Parts: sequence; structure tokens; C-alpha cells
Amino acid sequence: MPREQEMKANLQNYLDGFNEGDSEKVISLFAEDARVEDPVGSDPLKGIASIASFFQQSVPSVKRLELAAPIRGSHSNSAAMAFNIYVEIEGKESVIRCIDVMTFNDDGFIIDMKAYWGPEDIQS
Amino acid sequence: MPREQEMKANLQNYLDGFNEGDSEKVISLFAEDARVEDPVGSDPLKGIASIASFFQQSVPSVKRLELAAPIRGSHSNSAAMAFNIYVEIEGKESVIRCIDVMTFNDDGFIIDMKAYWGPEDIQS
Repeated sequence: MPREQEMKANLQNYLDGFNEGDSEKVISLFAEDARVEDPVGSDPLKGIASIASFFQQSVPSVKRLELAAPIRGSHSNSAAMAFNIYVEIEGKESVIRCIDVMTFNDDGFIIDMKAYWGPEDIQS
Repeated sequence: MPREQEMKANLQNYLDGFNEGDSEKVISLFAEDARVEDPVGSDPLKGIASIASFFQQSVPSVKRLELAAPIRGSHSNSAAMAFNIYVEIEGKESVIRCIDVMTFNDDGFIIDMKAYWGPEDIQS
């Protein structure tokens, strides 16, 4: 099981990858057979090919990610964080308020990501 | 499926119940067959009897809960929040940094609660 500090470091790497515009850094955090549901309630992406395609599109489209509170761990192989996504929507700077829950496999890669944000969490 | 606003109102009711010292208010948010895993990685409580007993003990032991960021919804039947739990541990005011994910049934009751916090999320 990955240690709490390693999981938190990988969530920080996820934020940093976005903020450095480095989609490969983000993609490298995920396992080959990972599952990404962003937002929760949408059809999940399954497997690294779909996930890579998703982040190759989303990383350049995001201005920055900012933590809203310190990253949380757990007593198991999951960690979670509340953050804000700054994006331009139809020419206006907008913010999406999000909570991501990441679950890790034994090798320390993200095997599951769930992004909790709804229509009302977007503010323009 | 419960609406986003209703789910968020119920997460706020959860906080309010704790802050009012009203364990029954907290317990009334949960379905008969709910599951509570607090913290994630511990044995889950299953069913309202175990859950009621848990909150009857935990509500009086907590000083207050404070949101760390606005409550998040989703495009499905889940909502999430980052908050701080203020408690006294061995005579010292301490804070547990937590993220809860709540999933609702069609009747608007919490059917599943997962609380993400690890040993490193406790600060004395």
C-alpha cells in the first residue's frame, strides 16, 4: 500500500503538471488500467490511452489549479483534495470548484480518479 | 435522483447537526441501510443502528466542524466537502482535516459516506 506522504505528493504532482502545462507529467501518474470519472456522473474513461487523450486536451485548456485546503490522506490507499480550476469559458475567466478523490495501486500509480463538481460549482 | 442543491443542503445539515450538538439531526440524514466508512480504510458501519450509535458518541465529542471550502456537488447522486474537525485530544485542542463524500439514494437520504483523513491529517 502506498504511504500517505507519497499519495499526497502525487496529488501535488497532478496540480503541478497542470500548472506547468505538462500533460505528460499528469498522465505518468496513472496506471495502465486506470479509470477516470470527471465529473462524477459522466461516462468514465477506462485505460491509459483514453486518459492520456483526455489530459492532452484538458491540461492546455486550464489556466491554473489552486488548492482550496490542504490535501487529505486516509487510512487506506486513497487521498483527496479540494481545489479550484481556473479556465476561460466563452471568453470569461471562470472557476470550477472541485474535489478529487484518487485511489492508488500497490505500485503507487493512480488506479481510480473521481472528480466531484456539478453544474452549480462553475462560477463565471 | 436528488438535486444538487438538496444534496448540498444535507451536507450543511450534517455540519449544523454537529455544531448544534444534535446527534439526532445528523442521524436523520442517513438511510436505514446506509454505510459509513470513517475514516476510509477502517471497517465500515452498516445499517442505521450502528450509525446512530457512532454519531451518538461522536457528536458530543466534537467541539465544532468548519467548512474549509464551499461544498461540491456532482453530475450524479454524490456531493463532497472539505472541512476541519475541532476536537480535544488528550487535553489539547486538535484539528482533523477531512474530506467527506456522501452518496444519496432516490429518497434524498445518505446511503454511503466516506471520510478521507489519515494519521497525518491530525494536528495538535
